[in-house]
Amino acid sequence: MQGNQWYDIDMNKRMFCAEGHLIDSGIFSKILNTILDEQGDYHISRFDVGKLPGESSVLEFALIAESPDLVQHIADRLTAFGVFEQMVPPAVMIPALKDSFVPQGFYSTTNHRTEVYYEGAWNEVLSQRMDAALVYEGEKSFRCVKLRDIRKGDRVVCGSDSVRVYPPAIEKRTGFAFMANDVSSERSGTVAVERIADELQKVKDQQGKVVVVCGPVVVHTGGADALASLIDSGYIQGFLGGNAVAVHDLEYRFYGTSLGVDLKTGIVAEHGHNHHMKAINTIYGAGSIREAIAEGILTEGLMYAVERSGIPYCLAGSIRDDGPLPETVNDMLEAQRLYAQIIEDADMIIMLSTMLHSIGTGNMTPSYVKTICVDINPAVVTKLSDRGSGQAVGVVSDVGLFLRALEARLKEISG
Amino acid sequence: MQGNQWYDIDMNKRMFCAEGHLIDSGIFSKILNTILDEQGDYHISRFDVGKLPGESSVLEFALIAESPDLVQHIADRLTAFGVFEQMVPPAVMIPALKDSFVPQGFYSTTNHRTEVYYEGAWNEVLSQRMDAALVYEGEKSFRCVKLRDIRKGDRVVCGSDSVRVYPPAIEKRTGFAFMANDVSSERSGTVAVERIADELQKVKDQQGKVVVVCGPVVVHTGGADALASLIDSGYIQGFLGGNAVAVHDLEYRFYGTSLGVDLKTGIVAEHGHNHHMKAINTIYGAGSIREAIAEGILTEGLMYAVERSGIPYCLAGSIRDDGPLPETVNDMLEAQRLYAQIIEDADMIIMLSTMLHSIGTGNMTPSYVKTICVDINPAVVTKLSDRGSGQAVGVVSDVGLFLRALEARLKEISG
Amino acid sequence: MQGNQWYDIDMNKRMFCAEGHLIDSGIFSKILNTILDEQGDYHISRFDVGKLPGESSVLEFALIAESPDLVQHIADRLTAFGVFEQMVPPAVMIPALKDSFVPQGFYSTTNHRTEVYYEGAWNEVLSQRMDAALVYEGEKSFRCVKLRDIRKGDRVVCGSDSVRVYPPAIEKRTGFAFMANDVSSERSGTVAVERIADELQKVKDQQGKVVVVCGPVVVHTGGADALASLIDSGYIQGFLGGNAVAVHDLEYRFYGTSLGVDLKTGIVAEHGHNHHMKAINTIYGAGSIREAIAEGILTEGLMYAVERSGIPYCLAGSIRDDGPLPETVNDMLEAQRLYAQIIEDADMIIMLSTMLHSIGTGNMTPSYVKTICVDINPAVVTKLSDRGSGQAVGVVSDVGLFLRALEARLKEISG
Amino acid sequence: MQGNQWYDIDMNKRMFCAEGHLIDSGIFSKILNTILDEQGDYHISRFDVGKLPGESSVLEFALIAESPDLVQHIADRLTAFGVFEQMVPPAVMIPALKDSFVPQGFYSTTNHRTEVYYEGAWNEVLSQRMDAALVYEGEKSFRCVKLRDIRKGDRVVCGSDSVRVYPPAIEKRTGFAFMANDVSSERSGTVAVERIADELQKVKDQQGKVVVVCGPVVVHTGGADALASLIDSGYIQGFLGGNAVAVHDLEYRFYGTSLGVDLKTGIVAEHGHNHHMKAINTIYGAGSIREAIAEGILTEGLMYAVERSGIPYCLAGSIRDDGPLPETVNDMLEAQRLYAQIIEDADMIIMLSTMLHSIGTGNMTPSYVKTICVDINPAVVTKLSDRGSGQAVGVVSDVGLFLRALEARLKEISG
Repeated sequence: MQGNQWYDIDMNKRMFCAEGHLIDSGIFSKILNTILDEQGDYHISRFDVGKLPGESSVLEFALIAESPDLVQHIADRLTAFGVFEQMVPPAVMIPALKDSFVPQGFYSTTNHRTEVYYEGAWNEVLSQRMDAALVYEGEKSFRCVKLRDIRKGDRVVCGSDSVRVYPPAIEKRTGFAFMANDVSSERSGTVAVERIADELQKVKDQQGKVVVVCGPVVVHTGGADALASLIDSGYIQGFLGGNAVAVHDLEYRFYGTSLGVDLKTGIVAEHGHNHHMKAINTIYGAGSIREAIAEGILTEGLMYAVERSGIPYCLAGSIRDDGPLPETVNDMLEAQRLYAQIIEDADMIIMLSTMLHSIGTGNMTPSYVKTICVDINPAVVTKLSDRGSGQAVGVVSDVGLFLRALEARLKEISG
Repeated sequence: MQGNQWYDIDMNKRMFCAEGHLIDSGIFSKILNTILDEQGDYHISRFDVGKLPGESSVLEFALIAESPDLVQHIADRLTAFGVFEQMVPPAVMIPALKDSFVPQGFYSTTNHRTEVYYEGAWNEVLSQRMDAALVYEGEKSFRCVKLRDIRKGDRVVCGSDSVRVYPPAIEKRTGFAFMANDVSSERSGTVAVERIADELQKVKDQQGKVVVVCGPVVVHTGGADALASLIDSGYIQGFLGGNAVAVHDLEYRFYGTSLGVDLKTGIVAEHGHNHHMKAINTIYGAGSIREAIAEGILTEGLMYAVERSGIPYCLAGSIRDDGPLPETVNDMLEAQRLYAQIIEDADMIIMLSTMLHSIGTGNMTPSYVKTICVDINPAVVTKLSDRGSGQAVGVVSDVGLFLRALEARLKEISG
Repeated sequence: MQGNQWYDIDMNKRMFCAEGHLIDSGIFSKILNTILDEQGDYHISRFDVGKLPGESSVLEFALIAESPDLVQHIADRLTAFGVFEQMVPPAVMIPALKDSFVPQGFYSTTNHRTEVYYEGAWNEVLSQRMDAALVYEGEKSFRCVKLRDIRKGDRVVCGSDSVRVYPPAIEKRTGFAFMANDVSSERSGTVAVERIADELQKVKDQQGKVVVVCGPVVVHTGGADALASLIDSGYIQGFLGGNAVAVHDLEYRFYGTSLGVDLKTGIVAEHGHNHHMKAINTIYGAGSIREAIAEGILTEGLMYAVERSGIPYCLAGSIRDDGPLPETVNDMLEAQRLYAQIIEDADMIIMLSTMLHSIGTGNMTPSYVKTICVDINPAVVTKLSDRGSGQAVGVVSDVGLFLRALEARLKEISG
Repeated sequence: MQGNQWYDIDMNKRMFCAEGHLIDSGIFSKILNTILDEQGDYHISRFDVGKLPGESSVLEFALIAESPDLVQHIADRLTAFGVFEQMVPPAVMIPALKDSFVPQGFYSTTNHRTEVYYEGAWNEVLSQRMDAALVYEGEKSFRCVKLRDIRKGDRVVCGSDSVRVYPPAIEKRTGFAFMANDVSSERSGTVAVERIADELQKVKDQQGKVVVVCGPVVVHTGGADALASLIDSGYIQGFLGGNAVAVHDLEYRFYGTSLGVDLKTGIVAEHGHNHHMKAINTIYGAGSIREAIAEGILTEGLMYAVERSGIPYCLAGSIRDDGPLPETVNDMLEAQRLYAQIIEDADMIIMLSTMLHSIGTGNMTPSYVKTICVDINPAVVTKLSDRGSGQAVGVVSDVGLFLRALEARLKEISG
């Protein structure tokens, strides 16, 4: 780690703090353990344990190590647990020497809520996302900026001394606890349906924002109509997907098939392998999905609901696309920009059977946004976690039956 | 192959026949292809191609090869495709020299319908199952007998010259075609629900027999009540499972949990890991499940429905059992005997999320029995096929949601 | 199907032919069966059955149906089986009315070898791929053109009367038979290693072309060095992947980790979640992977081998990319163009644990190119088949151990 | 919970202790959290935090709640975290009223190391396993007894006041950390091979005991010879499996096939579906595997190595068995007894691709025994954990390639 080369600290004992749900979350243990693991020592000067869920704990301790370097090294590691220095040094910022290139000691963000200490105060970071640099925009404003968007001269936060993060405690007292760390196909999809229905209803009642990330399997497994119904009923405020979900939804509307399989009978349709191409051609003929709707060519279905509802959406292109449809965004940098814009301020994200777009969305989603991932394959949730979206709770189920049961349940509870 | 040592044939050209849906099923191709693969030759003397589904084709051909041995070798292979000799020799039968041991040239059965030529006629084999020997019981009666049940002196059919089998053509014109060879999680569980509901209704209307093979996942995923409802409504005529499905159903009835997870909330219950043991202890206290019902201790649920309906059932023991429950059959030979008895004359077998018992059942099920396998893991159906139950059509779905949807659908169509 | 509106045919009995391995491949059965399924009838006027592998069969038959429309309809379906009309009409070509839009009756290609009858001869189609239109380029030359590349006025082949395709018979007599239709995790990866090693050696000896499609799992599971060694030894002539495989390979070279996990110890490295971002930043600092090599910053590994070997490669962007690296192609249309260029004339394609790029590559690969797909998840091969790449043979294995065993085996056999 | 009905306690404040790696293991957090969750309160009177790995922490606290019942209820829950009462009451023991039936308030064991307080001392429990009752055998000796083995009059420990358990801290400082909680197929099987080889060598050098639990997939994937080699080299001291692994190993030795697939070529062998039955018949002819070896009929392979090495083994029967082989134990109660006997005092258990026998073994294995589970399906490890064997570390890999790599690695390091 060359991270410390940019500034100078010369103490081998420094005072640190942490606040929050330290006990529940296991963070207290992790802090002490990390120190000992790294051959450091500590002296706890204060530990006020919050006893009730609503009460935070406060921990103050001296971190002691053989050398100032080691103290610094340990302090860097502790940042991830929300530990910050009582005498916090103001953020060290180094200007980028050229576009898309930051000092190698840059602080690379997590997806947790983050603050930077500067001008005597903790300042919450804007545009929280993982794997970004922190750029100072003046007036005590810091923002997550992807490396590629760094411009020469941007003032980039280096080291972690002046940074603190808020790793989310598992939401054990909310209805979401039921699925935490649970990617077993042996748990009840039925329970998940009820909980998610309750949550959707609550978000809707509070005029919140739910974004759905949707793969073509939703169409193949017969869930597209149920999802369209959710959109029509105002439960969904943003739609992310790729070219394929739209193509197969159109194929279904024009030909009754998805991937050439008749969705009413389950039988491979005659000439069915052509249907998705003919659907694309039909849209090419009209000019776009929007124009096909305007001309009365497309009159129902998932993409129809998305378009008609007026919610923002983005179909990201990929190497495997047929067509692609005119609405598909083929420049990945532009698609990422649109995705990020659509999930902004989302209260909840529901990922439906698409690993690709789910990981893409997860990369830009703060960890404090409720995230549900429905997939028949338990490995998908494991992969999301491997890539940092540990907050995603997995529902291992058949997405078609799941969406139909969810639609039925929402009708039931919304009366 | 030492199979031919038991009898003597000395022709290098012999006449063979095959009848049935030779074209549809691909069997015509396989016959010709097998002959050429084995360096044989053929001359087709007659080929009446049935044009309509209801019409059989008839093929007659000379099989020619370098040596009588090779003719015999090829003829042996062709048996699997339903090919039989026009001048069929009567079955060669060798007495078993001791218990559980047959002549090494014994004919090992498939699970397809099988006939033995003897005393001038084709005689259908009794107790059809795979991996059995064929024993002559006198009066032109042949029966599939497991090796372990062979007794010294039993007359065992050797070689395949006098045997013909009827490999099932894929049932392409029935509603079941929709799933043939289809183990993709991308197909619609919704369609499967409708088709299977129709089939169940039809079998019930015809007073047929449906046997369910049921794993504990049915309980874990919240499908037990739906299955109990199907039993109550008379859709199921036999129940096969293991100790675990009963234990977890009892746990659910006594404590509301399954594997310690509360099925209403999805949350791990306090002390939940004890519940299944307490449930077993309760049954041990009552004496048995039956006595627990008689005493009013057990008043609902899947096992209650099974017991009350009076349908035959068997809980087979296994190495991983807790308890086991008094009703569990711990001797595997006895359990296999009971399983075989229960599936006798079944019209349809539905396998629900238990690979172990499904393979066990598949071993003893003729291939002409409609077999459905519902599992969230597509590999389960592949494994069933690897073990000979190629007739099983797979539904990759969430078994809990599947059973609830099936129950709802049956209510709908049965009015 | 509006496919027939573009031309006019008025016979209710027409003569058709098919040639090739009709028996082996099951195509003979499919032809007759399709006709009957569609309520048509046939009269076989000639059927010369090829007896040896090297000999084709020739089938001539009259296709009879109630109406010319039905004859046409059946004839359209039979095209997929290589059936063509004895009196073949020359290709009907309709000019595209605008860019990216073809007549709705256009012939949508499969990935099988295809010929168009025109000016008295069968002309093999250029740039064979699935889901394309056939455009006449003059001088009896037809080419597969993606819809989006159609230009106003392009002469597009409509209907299927003048088209014939060559569905590949399963290569049962080559070493590849071992895996056909086999996506079971219960088969031997060991055998697959030996067969693929033999094939790779054979292609190399014949100066053929092997293209690898590679996902980041190759790096995570410790297979990158083995693959680099194959490239160094001249077994690979093209490399397709995405941004991630390159990022994680660079992370591994600079930090010894992949996804933050130390590949020597398997332990999550301290600050490891930053490593891939620091790796990207390092490349941004150098300008590109190529410049990082030139400057001596990158001195080993998979991307080093790819660059140094001079084989063509393409890293396709995706919605989930970090960075992306300067070499990554972010415009999906351009990435598809480069992929198609790199696989041109490939003898063999090896897909390594990346469903996304494998499907992308499969879309543009003719079905007669040997295709191997190695993945630990059996569902990946099923999905490839669902999307038309039925020729891909699956190896369900651990890709890291697989590549190391393959490297060892190739060293052994190349002596 | 009726657990408290058996004894009487009337305090609403009681003193408790816990000792051990309370911080590292997260147990400190869990204790405090559980108390608050249950509406209790606590006052920490002493907390000596062990700073070094070798040093334990000691926690003393008052547990306070509204009612004695609630104190008792919370105390019961805390038992699972190793919490015990400072003024521990001696164990309450109630005689069983009849065979196989214990008082409903019985203490049901976990698989963690357990002690019972009696006659002024903590007494470690014998035959530690999960889901057992604790029976007092006199002379301060307590033993885990399965419910079915309870005899009328057995003195059964009730309640948890006098019980303390030692949940294993994750072995973070041993080489095994690399796999903890890791069931991702994206990690390196290569690393796992090296670590397990080191561990096997270490156990062998210390004359320890390794037991292997082995499924038939080991044979199907070509790993049987490598495992036989490990047995021959003295790395394995016990062998657990079912009928199938032996049948397919014998099939392989007699016919070169496994499940009818030729293991050298990967091609389905002619008549291959008979081979396993002929193998069984051969053994039936000889009388048993042992006699087949004595007669020179079986001369190599996995079962040969098992028999010849003289290590204890058990083949447990199951509902899906063919044969079964004479050595197969068909009574499940007897098979469980033999399994338990063979794993006694094992240092390490390696589970190879058999969920059934792995769960069976896990049920009777103390949690402090190192347990490795190798399977190509990540869900298998999740299921083991769902059933209490949370200590099992998963390696998602191809078991055939894995065993071959392990054999090669052991040859390397053992010189």
